[in-house]
Amino acid sequence: MSEAKNAFYAQSGGVTAVINASACGVIETARRHSDKIANVYAGRNGIIGALTEDLIDTSRETAAAISALKHTPSGAFGSCRYKLKGLEENRAEYARLIDVFKAHDIGYFFYNGGGDSADTCHKISQLSKETGLPLQAIHIPKTVDNDLPITDNCPGFGSVAKYIAVSTREASYDVRSMAKTSTKVFVIEVMGRHAGWIAAAGGLAADSDNDIPVLILFPEVEFAKDRFIAKVQDYVGRYGYCSVVVSEGARWPDGRFLAEQDTTDAFGHAQLGGAAPVVANMVKEALGYKFHWAVADYLQRSARHIASGTDVEQAYALGKAAVDYALAGQNAIMPVIVRLSDDPYRWEIGHAALSEVANVEKFVPGEFISEDGFGITPACRAYLEPLIRGEDYPPYQKGMPQYVRLLNAPVTKKLNVEFEL
Amino acid sequence: MSEAKNAFYAQSGGVTAVINASACGVIETARRHSDKIANVYAGRNGIIGALTEDLIDTSRETAAAISALKHTPSGAFGSCRYKLKGLEENRAEYARLIDVFKAHDIGYFFYNGGGDSADTCHKISQLSKETGLPLQAIHIPKTVDNDLPITDNCPGFGSVAKYIAVSTREASYDVRSMAKTSTKVFVIEVMGRHAGWIAAAGGLAADSDNDIPVLILFPEVEFAKDRFIAKVQDYVGRYGYCSVVVSEGARWPDGRFLAEQDTTDAFGHAQLGGAAPVVANMVKEALGYKFHWAVADYLQRSARHIASGTDVEQAYALGKAAVDYALAGQNAIMPVIVRLSDDPYRWEIGHAALSEVANVEKFVPGEFISEDGFGITPACRAYLEPLIRGEDYPPYQKGMPQYVRLLNAPVTKKLNVEFEL
Repeated sequence: MSEAKNAFYAQSGGVTAVINASACGVIETARRHSDKIANVYAGRNGIIGALTEDLIDTSRETAAAISALKHTPSGAFGSCRYKLKGLEENRAEYARLIDVFKAHDIGYFFYNGGGDSADTCHKISQLSKETGLPLQAIHIPKTVDNDLPITDNCPGFGSVAKYIAVSTREASYDVRSMAKTSTKVFVIEVMGRHAGWIAAAGGLAADSDNDIPVLILFPEVEFAKDRFIAKVQDYVGRYGYCSVVVSEGARWPDGRFLAEQDTTDAFGHAQLGGAAPVVANMVKEALGYKFHWAVADYLQRSARHIASGTDVEQAYALGKAAVDYALAGQNAIMPVIVRLSDDPYRWEIGHAALSEVANVEKFVPGEFISEDGFGITPACRAYLEPLIRGEDYPPYQKGMPQYVRLLNAPVTKKLNVEFEL
Repeated sequence: MSEAKNAFYAQSGGVTAVINASACGVIETARRHSDKIANVYAGRNGIIGALTEDLIDTSRETAAAISALKHTPSGAFGSCRYKLKGLEENRAEYARLIDVFKAHDIGYFFYNGGGDSADTCHKISQLSKETGLPLQAIHIPKTVDNDLPITDNCPGFGSVAKYIAVSTREASYDVRSMAKTSTKVFVIEVMGRHAGWIAAAGGLAADSDNDIPVLILFPEVEFAKDRFIAKVQDYVGRYGYCSVVVSEGARWPDGRFLAEQDTTDAFGHAQLGGAAPVVANMVKEALGYKFHWAVADYLQRSARHIASGTDVEQAYALGKAAVDYALAGQNAIMPVIVRLSDDPYRWEIGHAALSEVANVEKFVPGEFISEDGFGITPACRAYLEPLIRGEDYPPYQKGMPQYVRLLNAPVTKKLNVEFEL
C-alpha cells in the first residue's frame, strides 16, 4: 500500500439526477484498486471543501450506501457555485489547494462538473506540473444543459430531457382535455441558460402516435413575437390547443431575456426565471386564449424518479472511466461519450484533452431546429431519442423513493492554517 | 337485449392522472353487463357533449384501448368547465339534456367530477323524477383537491400528493447540495384553491429517514408574514436551507390571495398562479437568501408516470362501483371510499346521497396542521401516507410512456335541433 495515493473527488455547480451515479462509479472503481488508490476523499460542498480542508472520508461509507448513490439525485457531498479565478489573479487559492492535496497525499483529482469546473480542473493540472506535485487531474462531465464540447452528450441531460419530454406529453394530454371550454395554451419553462438542448427535448412529447402541437422557444433563435403569436393561433385553430416549451434563455432580438430579473448568481450570470408567465400573458393579450403555465425549475434536474436508464448508465460509466484513465496514467483529460450509431444506439467511452474542453459551449446546431425556428428536425429527434431511453426506477418504501444520506464523516485536518474564501 | 338501456358517461372539470381509470372501471363493468347496459356513450368534452348531442360511441373502442385508459392521464373523452345553472334559472338546458337522453335511450347517467358536477348530477336526478324519465344518476368522485365530503379521499388526489411529496423531496435534496454557496430556499407552488390537501402532501417529503425542513403555507391558515420569515430564518440557520410548499390558495389576513391575478375562470373563480415567486421574493427581501421557485401547475395533476398505486386502484373501483350500484337500482348517489384502518391500510366502497355531497367542501382539519401552522401532524401523516402508496408505472416505448388515444367515434345524431350553449 505504500505506493497508493489518495484521490480527491468533488461535485461542482448545479447538481443533477445522476451526478451521484458518477460518484458511485468513481468510488466503486477506486475501491477495486486499493493497491493504487488508498482512499477517496470527497470535498464537502465541492472545491470549497478542498480550500477549507473540509474533506469527507468516503471509506466510512458501506458498500450498500455507495451503491445507493446510483439511484440518489443531488450532490451527496454537497456542491458549490464557486469559480476559481485565473492563476495570475488568485494564486493563493491554487497554492492552498496544492497544500491541502500534499497534506493528504492526494495523487488523483477528480472534478465532476460543467464548463467552469473543466476550466478549474485544467488550471489545477497545469499548476501541478509547474509545482512538480504529481497530481493527475481528470474532469468528469456533468451538466443538465448538455453544452460541453466533444462529448456526444453530458450526464444529467438525458434525465432532464426525459422529464421534460414526459411532462410536456402529460400536460399536453391534460390541456387537450380542457381546451373546448377552458385552457387552450399551456406554457412550460425549462432550464438552459444559453443552449436549448432541454427545450429541444420538449419536442419529443410528440411522435407518430402522439400528434401534439408543441412550439419551442430556443435561446439559439431570436424571439419573433409576431411569428410566434401567428404560430400559436395556427395550432389552436387546427388542434384546439397547443403547448409551448420556453427556454429560460429565450431572448428578444435586442438580447434581453424574455424573463428579466435583476439578480445574478455567484458567477455573475443573470439569474433567470419567469419566461413562462411572460409568454403566457403575451398569448392571452394577443389572442385572448386562456392559459396555464408551469416553471419546472429544480424539479426537472432532481427528478431521479423518472431518470433515463441511458443517462444513469453513462454517468456511472464516466465516473468509472475517470478512475481507469487515471490508473492508466492519463492527466488533464475528460472521459467523453462517443456515439457509434443512433439506431440501434451504440456508444463507447473516449477522452478529450481539457485544453479543448474548458470554456467552450456547445449549442443546438441549425440542422436540429426546424425551418420556422419553433420545432425540432428528424435529425434532432434521432440524436435525442436514445438519450432518454430506459427507465431506472429508485426503490420505494411507503410510496416514497428511498434516497441515501451518507455519513459524510470528516477527515482529520492536517494543516494548522484556516483559509478565508 | 330489449330491456337494456344505454349509459351516458362524462368527465367534468379539471382532469387528473387517474380519471380515465374510473372511465375504464365504468366501461369494462358495463361491458360485462350488456344485458342491462347496451352501450356506454361518452360526452365529448363533458356535459357539453350531452347538450350538443355530441356523443362518443365507446363500443367502437377495443378492449385493449379501454384497458389502456387505466394508465392514461387526462380526460380521454374531453372534459369541460361548464356549470349548469339552477333549475329555475335555466330550465332549457335541463330540458335539452332530457331530450338527448330520451333520444338515445339513456337510462344511466354517470358523471365523473368534483363538487360542481355532483351538484349537476343531483339536479339531473331530481329533474328525471319530475319528468318521469327513468334515469339513474350516479356521481363518480374525482378531484385532485380532495375536497369532497363523506368520501375518505378523492381519486386524483393520491397521485398529485405522491407527485408533490416526491418532487419536494427531490428538490430538497438538490437545494441542500447547493446551499453552502448558492440557493438556500426552494419554493414550490401547488394546486388547491381553497383546501390545502395537496400542500399538506409536501410534508411527506420529510420522514424519519429524511430530516428535511419543509414549511407549508396552507389556505386554511392566515398568512402571517413575520412568523413565516422567522421560521425560514430558523430553518436555514439550523439546516442550511429550507423548502417551502405554498398553496395557490394561500391568503393574506385580509383575504387576498398571495398570488393575485386579474383573470377568472368559467366558474367565476379567480385564476391563480404566481404565489411561489411572491413568496420567494419576500424571503429574498427580508433575509437576502438566494432562492429558486417552481410552479408545478398541470404537471402535478397529469403526472401519470408517478401515479399512486392506491389511487389508480380506487379510481377504477369507484367507476366499477358506480355501474354496480346503478344495476342494483341506486339513484342520486356517489360511491365513496370508506377507510377501515390506517396501518395496515384497509378500505372499502360505500355510498353517499348526492344531496349531502353537492356544494360541500372538505378542508384540512385543525388537528392535521401543526401548532405553528407551517407543518403537518402525525395524524395528517397517518391519513396521507396510505394514499400515495404503490407505484403503477405506465408502459414505455423508446423512453416515453405509451398513453392511449381513443377513436372517439361520434354517435349518429337523432335530434334535428341544434343547441346553443
